[in-house]
Amino acid sequence: MKTNTQQWSETDQKIAQEALRKAYTRETEALVAEINQKASQITQISDIWALNDYLNSQRYNIDGKYDCRESTSIFVLAQLVKEKWLTLDELTGLTPSTRAKVGALAKMS
Amino acid sequence: MKTNTQQWSETDQKIAQEALRKAYTRETEALVAEINQKASQITQISDIWALNDYLNSQRYNIDGKYDCRESTSIFVLAQLVKEKWLTLDELTGLTPSTRAKVGALAKMS
Repeated sequence: MKTNTQQWSETDQKIAQEALRKAYTRETEALVAEINQKASQITQISDIWALNDYLNSQRYNIDGKYDCRESTSIFVLAQLVKEKWLTLDELTGLTPSTRAKVGALAKMS
Repeated sequence: MKTNTQQWSETDQKIAQEALRKAYTRETEALVAEINQKASQITQISDIWALNDYLNSQRYNIDGKYDCRESTSIFVLAQLVKEKWLTLDELTGLTPSTRAKVGALAKMS
């Protein structure tokens, strides 16, 4: 399966970037809600260090996934579909073969 | 000013360790209250990363300060007095010259 990002058209890149923005908004809003909930249950210092560990791992995950240099990677799009931050329907407009690759990778990964 | 920890008597070490335990409890309870308050104000992802940075710095600070290998350091006791997690009165029972050094360092630092 060819996944070279240089084959992406300008339209494909715009659609992918818009999809990434949507996914980023959804994922970070969900994290805000989750942290509000977790933080309300903090009663001792070990809870704080557990929250700290969780935030470190989430930051590493989110910073890496939405790195703008990766904005047209089908692997990132596939990961986001797999994680349900995006649907394949939201990638309508992409070159059909590219969208199909994203769908196939999302199932494989 | 001599600050060599090897001059500490067993009684001094016990008093210092008990003082450290008190200060640790106070400081970590204050942090729990502070984080509860900060977390209740989180509304967006930038607030979460700011909280993450703050927790990382607090963890580094607390882990370092209360490292048990440092339990009889007059520098740590002086820092805790300066930060108001301990009072000099709570170090009553220490060899007077040691307590005086802690007090002097707390003013100097």
